[in-house]
Amino acid sequence: MARVSQAHLDARRRQILDGAALCFARNGFHATSMQDVLKEVDLSAGAVYRYFSGKDELIAAIVSEVMGEIRGAFEDAARQNPPPTPDALIPAVLGRVLKTREFLHVDGEPAFPRLVLQVWTETGRNEELAAVLSEGYQAVRAAWATVVGAYQESGMMPADVPADDVARTMIATVQGFIVQQSLFGAVPVEVLSGGLRALMSMGGPRPAG
Amino acid sequence: MARVSQAHLDARRRQILDGAALCFARNGFHATSMQDVLKEVDLSAGAVYRYFSGKDELIAAIVSEVMGEIRGAFEDAARQNPPPTPDALIPAVLGRVLKTREFLHVDGEPAFPRLVLQVWTETGRNEELAAVLSEGYQAVRAAWATVVGAYQESGMMPADVPADDVARTMIATVQGFIVQQSLFGAVPVEVLSGGLRALMSMGGPRPAG
Repeated sequence: MARVSQAHLDARRRQILDGAALCFARNGFHATSMQDVLKEVDLSAGAVYRYFSGKDELIAAIVSEVMGEIRGAFEDAARQNPPPTPDALIPAVLGRVLKTREFLHVDGEPAFPRLVLQVWTETGRNEELAAVLSEGYQAVRAAWATVVGAYQESGMMPADVPADDVARTMIATVQGFIVQQSLFGAVPVEVLSGGLRALMSMGGPRPAG
Repeated sequence: MARVSQAHLDARRRQILDGAALCFARNGFHATSMQDVLKEVDLSAGAVYRYFSGKDELIAAIVSEVMGEIRGAFEDAARQNPPPTPDALIPAVLGRVLKTREFLHVDGEPAFPRLVLQVWTETGRNEELAAVLSEGYQAVRAAWATVVGAYQESGMMPADVPADDVARTMIATVQGFIVQQSLFGAVPVEVLSGGLRALMSMGGPRPAG
């Protein structure tokens, strides 16, 4: 029997993850069966189960991958001195995550924002998924807190600001932007840059009221 | 037959809307039947159908009510001169919307954030609901753009900032905060104040890098 290369195994794994992501984005996790995934990726059960034991493993792998990308991007940012400001950093990270998956479409719209919404909804009734998501969220929050620490060391943000408040608020802008994309269609990330930059401009001396 | 007072009719309508909100937050719109709603509110079918023709009307009424509150709050803010800054305005509006519904619980957590997430997810497969939500979103966006205009007139924000970018970004912070509440439990709105205030503080002169 011919040896299967690592590149081939990786490509097959990628194909399965992308197909599952499409199915989940289209119909939700709950209403998607492994049969739907097999049909989407056009592979036999044996070929798919070699990589993933079922839906739970598939969704966990998808969530872990995205969370890892986001976390890594913020950890990279924290190592820069000074780190990029939020109006540059947030759209850059979000833009990269969206770009990597822009070929995945559902009903002519990007699938990724819908997938995220489906994952969030499923989290309420799936403890395993909730644990994966919670772990990823804590990691991204911690990475963001490090970025805030770097802002503070560079004198870009007051030292007495609670880093976790900033982390949660910055993460909220991204989550909300994904909600808007999911509900109302694609929006360029530049919208978020412009909005954040405007908000950052409000801290100057107040005009005499 | 005794005349039924308007107050009684209003209270009954309220009771049905709150019960339906609980059901939708708990199990999602799709998996909730009118039987579930009748059981939750402990009323006869006749009593409930007098007010609402079915699930679609219930969810539309719930969404319209929330959107109306939010829109009204931002329209009020736009009339103030100068309007409250985002770190005060956003948590105040969100806090009021959450407070009005804080007695509604699912699994010991506030039901409202979960309800919102369920509504968003359902929107993908329910055109009528999508229309209600889209109309509400456009109205809130327009109200926000008016607030941004007032910031600009007061000299609190540069005149060349695209108002809609700010509107979308500010709405995103609230949507994302609701996502976090839904996934990870209640969070005080002060977290959002702190985060927004910190972001607003970043616009000052950059330190020499």
